[in-house]
Amino acid sequence: MEFSSKLLERAVNEMSQLPGIGKRTALRLVLHLLRQPESQTNQLSDALKAMRSEINLCKSCHNISDTAVCEICSNPYRTEEIICVVEDIRDVMAIENTSSFRGLYHVLGGKISPMDGIGPNDLNIETLVEKVKSGKVKELIFALGSTMEGDTTNFYIYRQIQDYNVVTSTIARGISVGNELEYTDEVTLGRSIINRIPFEASLKS
Amino acid sequence: MEFSSKLLERAVNEMSQLPGIGKRTALRLVLHLLRQPESQTNQLSDALKAMRSEINLCKSCHNISDTAVCEICSNPYRTEEIICVVEDIRDVMAIENTSSFRGLYHVLGGKISPMDGIGPNDLNIETLVEKVKSGKVKELIFALGSTMEGDTTNFYIYRQIQDYNVVTSTIARGISVGNELEYTDEVTLGRSIINRIPFEASLKS
Repeated sequence: MEFSSKLLERAVNEMSQLPGIGKRTALRLVLHLLRQPESQTNQLSDALKAMRSEINLCKSCHNISDTAVCEICSNPYRTEEIICVVEDIRDVMAIENTSSFRGLYHVLGGKISPMDGIGPNDLNIETLVEKVKSGKVKELIFALGSTMEGDTTNFYIYRQIQDYNVVTSTIARGISVGNELEYTDEVTLGRSIINRIPFEASLKS
Repeated sequence: MEFSSKLLERAVNEMSQLPGIGKRTALRLVLHLLRQPESQTNQLSDALKAMRSEINLCKSCHNISDTAVCEICSNPYRTEEIICVVEDIRDVMAIENTSSFRGLYHVLGGKISPMDGIGPNDLNIETLVEKVKSGKVKELIFALGSTMEGDTTNFYIYRQIQDYNVVTSTIARGISVGNELEYTDEVTLGRSIINRIPFEASLKS
């Protein structure tokens, strides 16, 4: 792509560093900004800079937070006996949206993935093990995505904490609510039969 | 969407102002920036700000340029007798990539679109008419997209300049090079038969 302006080229190049944004999309976005009032570009730039330099991770659960301890961890109405282990902050937001969980979270910051060069030491696993060792935690819920990396990470953490007195569970995998059987993939359907639940229990949820 | 951080929320909101970027995509992009070194966010912010505040439009053709008159308009090897009328700078880049055109451009900055509240006075039409009036221009090539707005804009400009001694043409519409007839839409195929060209002419291009 040949640009008639170095300023434009630089903006497009920086924009296209973002995941899923190619040069053409970046150009479209940048030209949009050019058509809008200058204030919009300044607000976007300032918001990104402020976020990157001032944002803070909760020192307990590693969730993104503006305070040293996040709102969830400091909420006295939530129990610290159940910890839901998730990959990143988006998972926290997704689970919070369901209003189905009143425990705390622990954000790993990723999944173990040798292919991407991510090992256990790159994740917030040690602090999780410390929490379990402290004895306050009664149950860990593994809520990672149902992928090989997710399963590997679950198993790695399980091995670290299996000698402590803590119940471990993973979120249920099965057919989606509202889905027809015929559109469900075989592996999910097979597992959903193996891991069937008592009918009375299904009435309660 | 509930955010655990105001800084994050502000960044996501600003990002989702961009066209085609929803809240979820914005969150994904912003979290990506958080995982990258702070320098990347700063470079992106600075590039956008610099572009928005310092960028300049060529005073002759309204193309984006770092100089008062753009490289194309100031190139002595290009003829100012043929002007290609385009909607925006992306069209200039697309045509320049073909290396098929040695004249100059005129960037309208949009198309007449009453639905979007864009009238002739919002576009760079007056300066184009002035160029034609000056007598230096021998041919105008309309190279707007083949839409109702494009056709309306072509016709509006045509009415403004029809009394002057200038040839007008539009870029050819027809089947794409390499395409099979059966996959071409009916309107395009019909027009391509009506606007057929002498076979000898097709051999030259």
